Amino acid sequence: MDARTGLPVVGMVGGGQLARMTHQAAIALGQSLRVLADTVDDGAALVASDVVVGDYRSLDDLRAFARGCDVVTFDHEHVPNEHIRALVADGVVVHPGPDALQFAQDKSAMRRRLTELGVPCPRWATVASERELDEFAAATGWPVVLKASSGGYDGKGVWVVGSLAEAAEVLGSGTALIVEEKVAIVRELAVDVARSPFGQGSVWPVVETVQRDGICVEVLAPAPDLDEDTAEEAQALALRIAQELGVTGMLAVELFETADGLVVNELAMRPHNSAHWTIEGARTSQFEQHLRAVLDYPLGATSPTAPVTVMANLLGGPDDVVPKGLDERVHHLMARWPDVKIHLYGKQFRPGRKVGHVTALGDELDSVRARARAAADYLMNGDAR
Amino acid sequence: MDARTGLPVVGMVGGGQLARMTHQAAIALGQSLRVLADTVDDGAALVASDVVVGDYRSLDDLRAFARGCDVVTFDHEHVPNEHIRALVADGVVVHPGPDALQFAQDKSAMRRRLTELGVPCPRWATVASERELDEFAAATGWPVVLKASSGGYDGKGVWVVGSLAEAAEVLGSGTALIVEEKVAIVRELAVDVARSPFGQGSVWPVVETVQRDGICVEVLAPAPDLDEDTAEEAQALALRIAQELGVTGMLAVELFETADGLVVNELAMRPHNSAHWTIEGARTSQFEQHLRAVLDYPLGATSPTAPVTVMANLLGGPDDVVPKGLDERVHHLMARWPDVKIHLYGKQFRPGRKVGHVTALGDELDSVRARARAAADYLMNGDAR
Repeated sequence: MDARTGLPVVGMVGGGQLARMTHQAAIALGQSLRVLADTVDDGAALVASDVVVGDYRSLDDLRAFARGCDVVTFDHEHVPNEHIRALVADGVVVHPGPDALQFAQDKSAMRRRLTELGVPCPRWATVASERELDEFAAATGWPVVLKASSGGYDGKGVWVVGSLAEAAEVLGSGTALIVEEKVAIVRELAVDVARSPFGQGSVWPVVETVQRDGICVEVLAPAPDLDEDTAEEAQALALRIAQELGVTGMLAVELFETADGLVVNELAMRPHNSAHWTIEGARTSQFEQHLRAVLDYPLGATSPTAPVTVMANLLGGPDDVVPKGLDERVHHLMARWPDVKIHLYGKQFRPGRKVGHVTALGDELDSVRARARAAADYLMNGDAR
Repeated sequence: MDARTGLPVVGMVGGGQLARMTHQAAIALGQSLRVLADTVDDGAALVASDVVVGDYRSLDDLRAFARGCDVVTFDHEHVPNEHIRALVADGVVVHPGPDALQFAQDKSAMRRRLTELGVPCPRWATVASERELDEFAAATGWPVVLKASSGGYDGKGVWVVGSLAEAAEVLGSGTALIVEEKVAIVRELAVDVARSPFGQGSVWPVVETVQRDGICVEVLAPAPDLDEDTAEEAQALALRIAQELGVTGMLAVELFETADGLVVNELAMRPHNSAHWTIEGARTSQFEQHLRAVLDYPLGATSPTAPVTVMANLLGGPDDVVPKGLDERVHHLMARWPDVKIHLYGKQFRPGRKVGHVTALGDELDSVRARARAAADYLMNGDAR
């Protein structure tokens, strides 16, 4: 507890945009997020008052950070699971806990557990040799998808390979891998849920996530033309996964919609890009909900605030630095799209890096999506297509 | 400009809840509000990274604070006008500027200027003696309202007096005073507008502000049953005042609705309690709009996000400290009213002090208002009436 306010202190490991936006939500709840950042220039470190600079791979740093926190949670999934277990053994309250988090840290553990639960997944196997890969592909056909068991994000750690020859380099790298069939995807969906230690669950409408080069570029909320039964099935599935895996806090379930139904692609146990639209588009944002959940507060209403919300990511272009005239572009964006909401993360621009997002809301998908798309393109490229 | 982000630095003098909530809005725009706080425990100082502790009455402190700011603005109106003039002479960009701000700092200047402009005001006069007061009251009848020309807020610096005897103490205190007729009020309204240095103006729907003991307890947005002509007249009046007075940033125009029409009660040139509802209830909040305005960015859309929004202030009760079990009360509030949004300011509780607010949104005034009222009562008193 913060003696000055009588309110709890949440510590978040990681100083990226998820911590940055969680801090915004914490302020409303009378709190101030404590952030363990890599550097003082991390997006969250630029805006939070209670920042510790340290190494999330160091148990000593984690222990020092956790002191005085009512609960410790995460902006990313890279904290070694054994360190989290050590914190719990110390008596630190950690959400999500290590037993749940392992399934977001280790794709083979995740696939094994979901398969046990009867959750629809692509066909998959762990793979360590050409022989194993060849046997797998003989059953599913080429190409197949190799994934690093841990550490991947935003398309990193994922390789679509069409032959043993194409797989040779990755197979020989010593990275622990799983292989999955390449599913024929109609589109990608996501369901974001939160679950509290008490066991309360909440779910937002199912969204469509539009990908380019393995990175999400747009989120359409709700997923257009999704039939009600499928939407309810997806929501029930995500809530069930949260419960079965003992997730506390936010859980994002990324899904493939296929001709034969839904299959689970990935899990993330933290606030997630697929739910950034909830800041304006739902009564309770995922950031507030994550705080509520990890504090074991009752969860907030998830009802949408508009018929359609579209979030478009701002992805760094070829410039390696902040685009010259970013402020000028913000100015023009505001003039042209006065209803579009801007979120900039204070990050250095790098090609493909998520440096912000914009959100548009309204009654009709095509026009809302066009506004979000044009505003994002303008902010990143200085022109609106 | 912040070299790390390519985005401007706004400095706000004053570390209260207005700065705290402006910082939340700044984060989305890629910025981090620089705050000049009285102490490290000020509500905004608890949550912002770029905090300078200093005295807003000291020109040296103001000058040091302003260094590196792209624009300096205010969380309150107590910075000496001559200091603001000195900053401007130094080349600091200040919004609102001293010529506008004087009308929020000096009630006699405000009344004089509004009267010149033909803006409806209560009958008023400056008053320094019993004789002057007696003459004024002879024309308007008793009781009359004495107001300190400067420094008042939340009912402080306002005295309703029924006779010369009742006025004696205030009159003899040496405070510069104005006197106003006691208007027969149907209800109180407020119009919040923003104006940029470029001259763009924007306005939110007219709201009703419900007062108790001179402090606003609830804001109903839009003002119930206000006829369209009166609403448009009030909006036009507020925009005209902003323009004529050269206001840059937010302007709150507090109005009395009387049997004979609208009269202006007070002006505030900063984000204002009467527009806290815009955080959830309008496409652009007053805090984002204030930042846009003082940065001379184009202004954001002000359209409402729900048919009805009600904001209820959280006012400190008899306890002088944080109520025991505030966190427990937050927990129960969330369980009972999952759609109500909480805003706590990190302030010490003192009787009558605004320590936070709650917001409810919906389709129908009575139920929305009842939810906001009950949630606020519960949070402050531990019971919901």
